[in-house]
Amino acid sequence: MATRQVLIAGKWQNAQASGTFTTENPATGQKLPDEYPISSWSDCDAALTAAAEAAVAMRSIAADSIAKFLRRFAERIESRAGELVEMANNESGLPKSPRLAEVELPRTTGQLRQAAEAAAEGSWTLATIDTKANIRSFLAPIGPVCVFGPNNFPFAFNSVAGGDFAAAIAAGNPVIGKANTSHPGTTRLLAEEALGAVTDTGLPPATVQLIYRTSHDEGAKLVSDIRTGAIAYTGSRSAGLTLKSAADRAGKPIYLELSSINPVVILPGVLAERLDKLAEEFAGSCLMGSGQFCTNPGLVILLAGESTERLIAAVKQRFEAATPAPLLSAGVQRSLTNAVKILQEAGAKLVTGGQPVSAAGYRFANSLLRVDGATFLKNAEKLQTEAFGNVSLLVVARDIAEAKAVLDHMEGNLTGCVYSAASGADDSAYDQLVPHLRHRVGRLLNDKMPTGVAVSPAMNHGGPYPATGHPGFTAVGIPASLRRFGMLQCFDSVRPNRLPPILRDKNPTGKTWRLVDGKWSTGDVGTL
Amino acid sequence: MATRQVLIAGKWQNAQASGTFTTENPATGQKLPDEYPISSWSDCDAALTAAAEAAVAMRSIAADSIAKFLRRFAERIESRAGELVEMANNESGLPKSPRLAEVELPRTTGQLRQAAEAAAEGSWTLATIDTKANIRSFLAPIGPVCVFGPNNFPFAFNSVAGGDFAAAIAAGNPVIGKANTSHPGTTRLLAEEALGAVTDTGLPPATVQLIYRTSHDEGAKLVSDIRTGAIAYTGSRSAGLTLKSAADRAGKPIYLELSSINPVVILPGVLAERLDKLAEEFAGSCLMGSGQFCTNPGLVILLAGESTERLIAAVKQRFEAATPAPLLSAGVQRSLTNAVKILQEAGAKLVTGGQPVSAAGYRFANSLLRVDGATFLKNAEKLQTEAFGNVSLLVVARDIAEAKAVLDHMEGNLTGCVYSAASGADDSAYDQLVPHLRHRVGRLLNDKMPTGVAVSPAMNHGGPYPATGHPGFTAVGIPASLRRFGMLQCFDSVRPNRLPPILRDKNPTGKTWRLVDGKWSTGDVGTL
Repeated sequence: MATRQVLIAGKWQNAQASGTFTTENPATGQKLPDEYPISSWSDCDAALTAAAEAAVAMRSIAADSIAKFLRRFAERIESRAGELVEMANNESGLPKSPRLAEVELPRTTGQLRQAAEAAAEGSWTLATIDTKANIRSFLAPIGPVCVFGPNNFPFAFNSVAGGDFAAAIAAGNPVIGKANTSHPGTTRLLAEEALGAVTDTGLPPATVQLIYRTSHDEGAKLVSDIRTGAIAYTGSRSAGLTLKSAADRAGKPIYLELSSINPVVILPGVLAERLDKLAEEFAGSCLMGSGQFCTNPGLVILLAGESTERLIAAVKQRFEAATPAPLLSAGVQRSLTNAVKILQEAGAKLVTGGQPVSAAGYRFANSLLRVDGATFLKNAEKLQTEAFGNVSLLVVARDIAEAKAVLDHMEGNLTGCVYSAASGADDSAYDQLVPHLRHRVGRLLNDKMPTGVAVSPAMNHGGPYPATGHPGFTAVGIPASLRRFGMLQCFDSVRPNRLPPILRDKNPTGKTWRLVDGKWSTGDVGTL
Repeated sequence: MATRQVLIAGKWQNAQASGTFTTENPATGQKLPDEYPISSWSDCDAALTAAAEAAVAMRSIAADSIAKFLRRFAERIESRAGELVEMANNESGLPKSPRLAEVELPRTTGQLRQAAEAAAEGSWTLATIDTKANIRSFLAPIGPVCVFGPNNFPFAFNSVAGGDFAAAIAAGNPVIGKANTSHPGTTRLLAEEALGAVTDTGLPPATVQLIYRTSHDEGAKLVSDIRTGAIAYTGSRSAGLTLKSAADRAGKPIYLELSSINPVVILPGVLAERLDKLAEEFAGSCLMGSGQFCTNPGLVILLAGESTERLIAAVKQRFEAATPAPLLSAGVQRSLTNAVKILQEAGAKLVTGGQPVSAAGYRFANSLLRVDGATFLKNAEKLQTEAFGNVSLLVVARDIAEAKAVLDHMEGNLTGCVYSAASGADDSAYDQLVPHLRHRVGRLLNDKMPTGVAVSPAMNHGGPYPATGHPGFTAVGIPASLRRFGMLQCFDSVRPNRLPPILRDKNPTGKTWRLVDGKWSTGDVGTL
């Protein structure tokens, strides 16, 4: 069996490998046929050199060409959809339909097209012109971006096709993709189409590169290299923090999306109004994709009482009625088993589930745990262990004061939800609790589960540490997500013909929003 | 002699001190009368607790009240200007007039008033509304900000009155100021007026707090504390990197302004046009404030030739004719002496100066060094040692290719300047060199020295590491500098009456710029 090739400097080539790896189909546990290389430093080094050259070339490429590439790439993904869905299904165990074919793949091409539009329009750069002082600035490309994709979205967060990739490219930067090792084949097919689109549209050959795996040390070396501009990482907390530490020491911006348990508060009044619908909504959100979402509702805060007990019973019933879907890998099953053990050791009691399912592939029983507020407060850190999968912990607080205290112990999270009665019966409780929740989460929801992450300009898929590494940025939502990959470049008294087009008096597109003397406008300077 | 008090939770109180320190007048070397405490952890802890409470209270205070505080503070500074200028002159040796009284103090009050305007207007928050998805987001206050001020601007970058302070407060956050230990008295007077303005305008008592000094370990503990929201630091690279490391490990955003040598390229054509004026301009910029500016032109790149030799001679003459002004402290003199030694050991030759001046206080001879391009390239790291003071290194490159190579070895800097002929004679050289310079500096200037830093919305006083810790942010320029102290808060399907005013359909001020469905506007949602 030949080892698959890496993509460096526009060429598929044999890796300088320190070893190889294979993967399994997690739905069956069967080994998949392909073998992939573990790259040694010389692959990383070659990719960095090519990326640095591409970054220079891309600085003088019109944003329109980058937009064309992104659109062309979306088309090519669509024309190879069948094979991609087949491969992703084999590697991830995620259902072909609707999940992969009708939801995730269209989301991915949709993101690429939105990113194309943002690149062409240029408003993401926050171009700012002070005509009186003749000082002008905008966010310019930051340089080569290393993208580390997660295991749970083989398309939509793929390191060579997903949200971080689209944002980094749209901002004018080449990408070095590090495949998630659970779906190297999907990543390879996507990289083939990316390279095709690069060729079709005449971008620098090293606009998109791909390596599959490195040692931890070489990953750290890659992100801290002088040629690296920035890093985007989505995945486990431990690996993420290792990369963060290396990048921080080298002064490289690293955008992380780490663990999040996404607290959901359900107040008594809403239970009186629609307990069953809520049980349905919660079970659906928690079990979707076997719970392997960054925004999975992993912790629910309830107030002690009879209706809360009925909700728990209703959820239990639904958890038990649903067949556990496969997890993404043996590793996910192992971590989940371990996390549930930690939660139990810290005082949580099983309501249902709690152990791997003995069936083909890697599955875990749909699991619900509960703990009272007082116990939670005694062991708050351990009881916030992320159980990445179809597991949720219910925290039953004695009263609002205890619920507040629980919220005060929450780490940073991507989302926080509060369900309250339509009647207004919970309004006072809402007003008391939300000040303790709002600043601990990136996105606050009302009466809605957190799992949906719309690609909206107003979305925040981010939040305070340790959910991410910086609370000012979002990984989803265009154009805001592009700003992670820009450096602020100011031009002070630079002669007009030497300015980048976006900062000249004439608005280069007639539709780029620029802040001119304190007013946002799409017009030319001098005509406002 | 009584030890001065720290300001914690709205009260001047005796520090829990682990020791005390005094300062000197650097113009005379004479000890100043006041004694200041070195705070132990219990002071930091008390300040953090009070700041966390103030942060909660500030979240429900109208931006208008914060604006009123900033304006009132500016008035109170002005009404105590005489005493402040006297104290700052004693502590810094900087001239009372025009520097302190007519330049820096008005700049400081101007910044506070611009920040007030930005706070009241709210456009800095980049409020974004997606009406279709009903998702809304904006930059909300990040929490208590620790501000570490530098030695070189006792007013304009003071930890309780300067640019970082104004930005942090205008963004809605309380500030814990850590005085620069070279001007504790100036900082104390400013904090007195800040507290007066807090009282006058009814802000939470702990909106502004002040400690003078801590051990390094306790500084690290302060910036990484769970109650801290963000940190702004301006000062030496070594102390800054110690804080950065602690803050990074705790996931706290830290904005650093570290060393910068601000390369200036002077092309041959401009020398033919105005050699003497240029010598004057350069000497003025380099010797102003004894060269103790973050944007001091510390490295000049020239092309070998007769006119370059004439420029060097003309600059030498001016350096020798000017009387060295006092440095900010004995420590600055020590560091400067050491830096010049390192430059010489690395191959630079003295053109003039090179040693401390034996006169009252702490002074250093106006110093010029030179090195050829080949030597520079051999020892590029050492030859970029920052000589913070009235010293500059001239790098004489053989030709454009060598000048390019010199630029390719430049670390990240705040600024980069290129002087070229008005005739267009240098245009080809400009076009060849600037692509090697642009992405290494935050601000590019044409035909102008870098020392002036206008408080313009388009300013970038920032740049790639190690000039700062993140190339996307600026420390000067309103409203952009406020965004460092915001966390992105998203509201997904949150009921209208629960939204913060800035995200409701009605524009709360009628003048706040918001991105509504992709268009910037100051109108109400639904009327656009």
